[in-house]
Order: sequence, then C-alpha cells, then structure tokens
Amino acid sequence: MPDYLDRLSSIRIVLVAPSHPGNIGAAARAMHTMGLERLVLVDPRRFPDPEATALASGATEVLDNARVVATLDEALASCALTVGFSARPREFAGRVLAVRDAAAQAIAHCAHGAVAFVFGTEMSGLSNDELARCSTVSTIPTNPEYASLNLAAAVQVAAYELRQAASDGSVWRAPRFEPATFDEIEGLYAHGSRTLADMRFLAPHMPRRLLPRLRRLFARAALEKEEVSILRGILARIDQILGRTR
Amino acid sequence: MPDYLDRLSSIRIVLVAPSHPGNIGAAARAMHTMGLERLVLVDPRRFPDPEATALASGATEVLDNARVVATLDEALASCALTVGFSARPREFAGRVLAVRDAAAQAIAHCAHGAVAFVFGTEMSGLSNDELARCSTVSTIPTNPEYASLNLAAAVQVAAYELRQAASDGSVWRAPRFEPATFDEIEGLYAHGSRTLADMRFLAPHMPRRLLPRLRRLFARAALEKEEVSILRGILARIDQILGRTR
Repeated sequence: MPDYLDRLSSIRIVLVAPSHPGNIGAAARAMHTMGLERLVLVDPRRFPDPEATALASGATEVLDNARVVATLDEALASCALTVGFSARPREFAGRVLAVRDAAAQAIAHCAHGAVAFVFGTEMSGLSNDELARCSTVSTIPTNPEYASLNLAAAVQVAAYELRQAASDGSVWRAPRFEPATFDEIEGLYAHGSRTLADMRFLAPHMPRRLLPRLRRLFARAALEKEEVSILRGILARIDQILGRTR
Repeated sequence: MPDYLDRLSSIRIVLVAPSHPGNIGAAARAMHTMGLERLVLVDPRRFPDPEATALASGATEVLDNARVVATLDEALASCALTVGFSARPREFAGRVLAVRDAAAQAIAHCAHGAVAFVFGTEMSGLSNDELARCSTVSTIPTNPEYASLNLAAAVQVAAYELRQAASDGSVWRAPRFEPATFDEIEGLYAHGSRTLADMRFLAPHMPRRLLPRLRRLFARAALEKEEVSILRGILARIDQILGRTR
C-alpha cells in the first residue's frame, strides 16, 4: 500500500443508532472498498447480526473490529476533526462543506490526530444536538427534490471521496504495447497511398484531402507496432487482389 | 432546477444482465438522488419485481420509466459517448479514465447527444466483448485488495460524480444571520477589556498578549450581531457581579 493511503486507516466512520443491521454490513463493505477500516457504532439496534455479516460480503474484518459504544461522545473521544453529515439544511449550522472539501480537510488533519465522519439514523439523520457536537458540518450534494441517499450509499460516497483525497488518482492501466516508430508509421502511409491510388479510390482528391484526414485519425490513435503490421497486412492483401484482378 | 442540471437527464445508466432485482431498485434510488432518471436494463433476470420496488424507496418513477432491451447494442443505440465500467484491469483496454474524468467528459458530450454509463453483472462485470463496444473505459479507484463495490454502490459513486461535474458544487447553507459591524465589534472589545481588567484576569499580560489572542479568535469566527449582544450580555452580568461583591 502506498504511504499516502496509510492515512485512511486513521479515519473512523461513526454510525449513530443505525436501525438496520443490513446497512451496517453494507457500510462496512463500502468502507473496505476504499481502504477505510475503523467502524464505530453508537448504540446500534442490533449488532452483531447475521444480516450485517451477509451484506458485508467479505469485509467481515471491518465488522469484527467494529467498536460499539453507548454515546456519541465516546465515539468522538480524542478526535482532532469531527465531521457530521446532514442532507437537510439546519438553522444553526456554521460553515457547511461539500463532502469533497470535507474529505480534503480530513486528509490534511490526519497528521494531527484522529478524524471522524459521523452519520445519523436512516430515518432522520443526526439530531441538531449531535450535529452541534461535530466541529464541521458536511453534506453530499444531491437532487434537492429527492435527497434520500441510503445510509450505506452515503458512506460509500464519503469513503470514495476520502480515498480520492488521499490518493494520486491513478487507476489501473492496460499493459503498454510497443508504440510504432516514425519510420514504421511513414512506411504505412506510403504503402497506403500507393494502394489507395491503385484502387482508384477518390483519386482526384487524393492525396490532397484524404491522406491528411487519415494521418489525423491515426495520429490521434497513437499507433502501436503491431497495429501497423496489421494494417500493412490488410494493404498487402488488397495489393494481391488488385494484382490478380488486373 | 438550474439549467446546467438539465444535462443530467440525457445520461442513461445501463445495467447489463443484473441478477438481483434488489440491486436494480437500489441503483434507481442512487440515480434519483443525483437527478439521473434514465435507466436501461439489458436482459435483466427478473424485472419488474417487488424487491426492486422496495429497494427503490420512493424512486419508483425511475423504475416505471426503465427501458428493458434484449441486447447491449439496443441500449447504446444513438449514443455519442459510451462509457463502460470495469474494476479489474483488461488487457485490451485503451485509455482508462477515473470515474471523475469520465463524468467530466460525459457532461461535455451531453450537448452533442446521448451518453451511456454501462455496468456489468454483479458477479463478473462487463465481458471483454461488451467493454469493447464502449468508446471509453472507466473505473472507480478502490482498495486494490478489495475492489468489490456493490453494483448499486458503483452506480451511486458514478451518479454522484456526474452531478458534481454538472453542477457548480453549491451545497445547502444555514440561513445568513446579520454580521456585526465594525463599531459593534470594537464596542465588544472595549467592554471586554474593561471587564477583564476589573476581574484582574491576567492583568500583567493584558492587553499586550491576551487581547490580540481574543481578537484573533473572534475575527476567525466572523461575529454576528446577535452574538455580540450575547457576549456583551455576559460581560454586563459579570460587571453586575463584580459591582455586588466589591
């Protein structure tokens, strides 16, 4: 694991009074997909529970290591940054950060101490009192006519943004094939010009308009060695046919 | 709805051969939370289904308007941009975009025609053939040791990024209270200085060190009118007590 992702492991996801064990499991799975491992449950209705384990789908380590506490204060103890989420506007909230900006702050704070991302109940979110105990309020921008993200879906988006903020944004790449050289590419164009002329394909405009368009297309595609071979193979086959039917 | 969010309505989410109706419902909910409304199902195992409706949780309009087609080609017909998702590396993929960049491209393409975001089956994702029919490959950056996002969770992250790319990033704000004026704030500091002196609170260092620190704190908080009143009320009460005990 690259060093910069270590920081994710010091971020805790706090679920306050979750009602459905399935959501706890799905949240654990969402966390694990993004490299977050520390789950704290405040007064969950049912936990542990087979439904949570089923929905965690392989992320059972997150569930096994989950801390269960009685109050939000216990969950937030020793945190240097506490971020409470709310979908709906609250009258007494101070500055409200979009989840992307909250994630950036969280990663910046990791060096100074623990960070908590706090989510309320499925039905009504965090209470005003609970939100007021958090140092920062955050929200996931949504459709204002239907802001009802499922609890695990909200955790998924927040965990995703935390990983984005912690990482360099690199993604998997297909294996690099060898790029064609200048000479190989010019050889292809020369061959193509001859064959197209032999074919009497749009001869009057060629190469004034056609060849530049073809060059543009292949330049954009950044030809590989093997692709040049394939294209020249096709041209050679056309040459054969032309030779035969002449 | 702001104009720029209209563009989201021309983006279709395509699910290829989803096995679990619950995932279809949860994906519809995820879409609707972000203002995406066009769902296309390619050869779903069971649809419509009461489990899909239950998991959609109010986003039933997305389900009601879902198009069911037999093949991926029908789902992609007339699209100007087709983005296929894959968690695992594929040997023949061209350029692979992180979902954030794919969302930006999608929003840019919306003006030119329909855009499809395509997701494969729960068990194995899109086949190589299906992925090759898409013009762009995208992936959601994840924990490389556990890249197993639930199907609806993947749709949630992609839909979220589409909304982010389409919107100006604004979030709900608490109502603006009236900021305190310069005179009110200076009045507070003057009052505070007098009271703290009367209290003989750290008199030797005051106001050389203490007052600048307090000014810094309150400046950062950007005091509101009502807050200045509250603080002056507290000071006045201290003044009263000092007067009484003197």
